[in-house]
Amino acid sequence: MLRNLTRTFSCPQSIIVKSCFVHSVPLPYAAADIMSKEQEKPQEKPSKIQLKTPKGTRDYGPEHTAIRNDVLGRITEVFKRHGAVNIDTPIFELKDVLTGKYGEDSKLIYDLADQGGESLSLRYDLTVPFARYLAMNKITNIKRYQIAKVYRRDNPSVARGRYREFYQCDFDIAGQYDDMLPEAECVFVAAEILRSLDAGKFKVKVNHRMLLDGLFESCGVPIDKFRTICSSVDKLDKSKWDEVKKEMTDEKGLTGEVADKIGTYVQLHGTDELVTTLFKDELLTTSKMAVQGLEAMKLFFEYIKLFGIDDIVSFDMSLARGLDYYTGIIYEVVLLDQGESVGSVAGGGRYDNLVGMFHPKNKTIPCVGISIGVERLFTVIEAKLAKQKQKTRATEIQVFVAAAQKNLVEHRMIVCKDLWNAGIKAEHSYKKNPKLLAQLQHCEENEIPWAVVIGEEEVSKGVVKLRDVVTRKEEEVKREELVEEIFKRLQIKS
Amino acid sequence: MLRNLTRTFSCPQSIIVKSCFVHSVPLPYAAADIMSKEQEKPQEKPSKIQLKTPKGTRDYGPEHTAIRNDVLGRITEVFKRHGAVNIDTPIFELKDVLTGKYGEDSKLIYDLADQGGESLSLRYDLTVPFARYLAMNKITNIKRYQIAKVYRRDNPSVARGRYREFYQCDFDIAGQYDDMLPEAECVFVAAEILRSLDAGKFKVKVNHRMLLDGLFESCGVPIDKFRTICSSVDKLDKSKWDEVKKEMTDEKGLTGEVADKIGTYVQLHGTDELVTTLFKDELLTTSKMAVQGLEAMKLFFEYIKLFGIDDIVSFDMSLARGLDYYTGIIYEVVLLDQGESVGSVAGGGRYDNLVGMFHPKNKTIPCVGISIGVERLFTVIEAKLAKQKQKTRATEIQVFVAAAQKNLVEHRMIVCKDLWNAGIKAEHSYKKNPKLLAQLQHCEENEIPWAVVIGEEEVSKGVVKLRDVVTRKEEEVKREELVEEIFKRLQIKS
Repeated sequence: MLRNLTRTFSCPQSIIVKSCFVHSVPLPYAAADIMSKEQEKPQEKPSKIQLKTPKGTRDYGPEHTAIRNDVLGRITEVFKRHGAVNIDTPIFELKDVLTGKYGEDSKLIYDLADQGGESLSLRYDLTVPFARYLAMNKITNIKRYQIAKVYRRDNPSVARGRYREFYQCDFDIAGQYDDMLPEAECVFVAAEILRSLDAGKFKVKVNHRMLLDGLFESCGVPIDKFRTICSSVDKLDKSKWDEVKKEMTDEKGLTGEVADKIGTYVQLHGTDELVTTLFKDELLTTSKMAVQGLEAMKLFFEYIKLFGIDDIVSFDMSLARGLDYYTGIIYEVVLLDQGESVGSVAGGGRYDNLVGMFHPKNKTIPCVGISIGVERLFTVIEAKLAKQKQKTRATEIQVFVAAAQKNLVEHRMIVCKDLWNAGIKAEHSYKKNPKLLAQLQHCEENEIPWAVVIGEEEVSKGVVKLRDVVTRKEEEVKREELVEEIFKRLQIKS
Repeated sequence: MLRNLTRTFSCPQSIIVKSCFVHSVPLPYAAADIMSKEQEKPQEKPSKIQLKTPKGTRDYGPEHTAIRNDVLGRITEVFKRHGAVNIDTPIFELKDVLTGKYGEDSKLIYDLADQGGESLSLRYDLTVPFARYLAMNKITNIKRYQIAKVYRRDNPSVARGRYREFYQCDFDIAGQYDDMLPEAECVFVAAEILRSLDAGKFKVKVNHRMLLDGLFESCGVPIDKFRTICSSVDKLDKSKWDEVKKEMTDEKGLTGEVADKIGTYVQLHGTDELVTTLFKDELLTTSKMAVQGLEAMKLFFEYIKLFGIDDIVSFDMSLARGLDYYTGIIYEVVLLDQGESVGSVAGGGRYDNLVGMFHPKNKTIPCVGISIGVERLFTVIEAKLAKQKQKTRATEIQVFVAAAQKNLVEHRMIVCKDLWNAGIKAEHSYKKNPKLLAQLQHCEENEIPWAVVIGEEEVSKGVVKLRDVVTRKEEEVKREELVEEIFKRLQIKS
C-alpha cells in the first residue's frame, strides 16, 4: 500500500487520496461528526478517490490549450476560406445510428448506460452524424465544417498522440457534382492546413476504392471477401507484404496465387505516370471498375496540377482506409519528418452511400470529405516549440494595474473598471495590499507589456505611472488620459 | 403504422425510415444479394432507424451555429479581457469524481455503460472537473475559463431553452485572496457579458450561504436540515411562500413557527440598505455566521459600487442555489424582459471546500466562479433576430469565381487557387459547366460581395471581369492584378 502510494504520488496523472469529506458543506459540526464516525471503525479502509482522468484522456492545461486554440483557429480559417458553413451535432447519437457503419472497429464505440429511455452511444467520428443530419433535414447539398471531439475505446498511446477522446476537424462537400472537383478541393484544403500549421514536410497518399475493388475482381477475389481483403491491404503501412499475404491466405482463405497477384499491385506507388502505366495493364483492365477508378485518378491528377499541389500527392496502391463507408477516392496525409511514430494526421475520401442508409427514401447524397486528426499534430507542434524553447503566453493581458503602497485597492478597481469598459485586457491583484515587487514580477513572468502603477502621490496629483514592463521605463500620465495613452502605446507595440 | 409514419414524416425531428442497406459498400451484386434475402421473408418487419437526435438534444444548423459562435466569441473576449487562461478537461470523469457533489440532482448524471474498465460518467458541470484538475495538478491559484458542453438527464423544455446537452461558459478564480475582490470581479464579468450580448435588461440576484445558514441557525432549524431547507428556499423563484412553507413543515418536519420565522426573512430583497437593516435585526444577529455573511455582503456592495454596477445588483434573501458545494456568496443573473419563460442565464458563487475533497492532503483551495448558461441566451437572441428579420450569413465568402461559358473549369480553378493562396475567402461551382445565372444567383442569395467572371474573351485577353454583386457593376481587371484589385476593394467595403 505504502509503495503504491509513493509510486502514484510521484505521478500527477494518478493520485490516490483518502476521501474524508462526504459533503462539501462548510459545517464544522457536521464534518466533525462524519469524521468521528469514521474513526469509530479504524480497521475499515477509507474510501478512495482516484485522482486521474479516465484512461486514454487528458486535461489540457493553459499552455497546451493556448497552442491547441491556435491550431484549431488556423484550421477554422482554412475551412472558412473555402466557404464551408459550420454545424454542430450532439456528442451522442441513438445507438442504431452508429450500428453497421464502422466494420471491425464497431467494438470501439462507447455506449451509455441504460438509465431508462433511449440507447445511446458516443459518436465515433463526425461523418456518420453528418450523414444522419443530412438525411434528417433533407439537405441535398452543403459544404460544412465541424470541429469537435470523438470517442474511441482504442488502446491509447500518448507518445503517438493516440487518445480515446480526441478532436476531429472535418470538412465535407455533399451534393451531386462533377467528378473530382470536390475531391481536388478537399486535398487542397488538407495541404493548406498542413502548410499553415508549419508541422514540417508531408505528403498526401491517394488511392481509389473502385480501383481496389476492381483489382480484387480482376485477381479473382470473391465479392464477399472484398472488404476483409481491403482491411488486410490497409495494414501494409505498418506490416511487410509477407505478413499481409499470410493473413490473406491463412486467415482469410485466399489462394497463394491470388494473393501474389494482389501483391504485385498493392506495392506500387508513384504519381500520374503510374496511372498511365496501369491503363496498359492487361489483367487489371479486365475489370470495368478498375478502369473507372483509373479514369477518376487521371482526372484527379489533372486537377491537382491546376491547383499546384501535385508535388505533395502520391498515388499509393496500398492505401485502403479502414472504414466501410468509402466508395471512391480515398486519401491520407502523413508527416515525413516524424518517422513512423506519428502516422497519418488527416484522412478521408468519398462516401456516396452513407446518407442513403439514413434517408427515408434511400435517396443518394454523394459526399466527400477530409478529417484532420489534430491530436497528433499537437504532439508534433508541442515538441517543436519545446525544442525551440518557445514560451507560449496563456493569457493576452495588456495592462496590469499595480499599487505602490497599501490601501489603494479601491483606486486599482476603478482603473481596472475604466480599462475593461474601454475593451482593454487588464488585471490586478486580488489581495488588498500586495507588495509592489510581487506585482511587477507577475508582469514580467507573464509577459504583460504595460503596468499602471498607482501611489498615494499619484492619487493626490490625479496621475498614474505608466510602466513599460520590458524596459522598466515609467512615464507620468494624467488619470483622465490613461485609456487614450494606453491605446496609443498598444498600437505602437503590436 | 401508416398513421405513425405520416405523423412522423411531417416532423423533421423524428423520421422513421426503413433500413434497407446493411452495408454501405458500393457493390451492386452484394447489395442486390442482401435485398433479395430481405424479400425472401416478406412478413418480417424491416429494421428501422429512428431519424432523430437523442431526447433533449438538438443539431445546430449553419445559421444557428453562426449565431452561437458569435455569442461564444463575445463571451470568450470578456473572459480574456480579465486575464483568464483557458483549460480543457475530458467530457467524462471517473464516476467517483462526481459522486456526492450535486445533492438531489445526482440522479440526473449520465453514466457510461460497463464495457470493461473504469466506471465513467459524463460531466454534469465544469466546476467539479475544475476542482479535480486543481487537486490533481496541485495548483494553488489560477484564473481560468472553460467553454464546453455538460450533460444532465433533466426534463428537457425546448421553449425554455433547457436541453440535456448544453454549453456552459465558466470563469473561476481559485486562490487564497482577500474578501470579495474575486467575487466582485465575477459579477462584473457576468454584467459585461450580458451587456455585450445585447440580450435586454437583466439583474444579478445575490445572497450569501453563511447568511442563509446563519438565518436557519437563528430561527432554530436543526443543523442536519440546513441543506434540505436551503433546497426548499431555492424554490421561491417558482413557487409561492405558502407552498414552500408547506414543504418545510409537512415534508421536512419544521414546526410552523420556525418556518414562519424563516418566511419573514427569505421574502426580503433590496440593495445595500437591506444589509444595514439586517445588521440591526436582533434575531438574525444572534448567529455569528449570519453576521459574517452580512459583513461580506456589505463589502461586496462597496466593491460593486466602485465597479459601477450596483444598479444591476439585487440582494435577494430567497436566492439559495441548488448545488451543495457553495460556501459563501451566491448569485444568479436573470433576464427582465423575457417574463418567466427564460429564467436564470448565469449563476455561480463561492465554493471553498470542493477542491479539498479531491486533494491528497485535503488542502483547501478557495474558489469562486460564474457560469453562463448560453442555451437560454441563444433562444432569446435567436428570437430577437427572427423578430428583426435579420438574416445571418453562415459563411464569410468574399469572392465567387464564375464562368460565363462552358469549358472554363480549369480557369476557374486556377483563379481560386490564386485567391486562396493570397488568403482570400473564395469559392466556385463544383459543376463543370454551371449556368452563369445560377452562379450569380448563388452570389446574391449568399450575400457574397464580389464575383470574378471569366469568359472565353477574357481568357484570350488575359483579363477577368470583377463584378460588384450588389450594384451588378462590372469592371475589367488584368488577370495578374486580380488579387491586388480584390484586396483594394475588400478594404473599401469592410
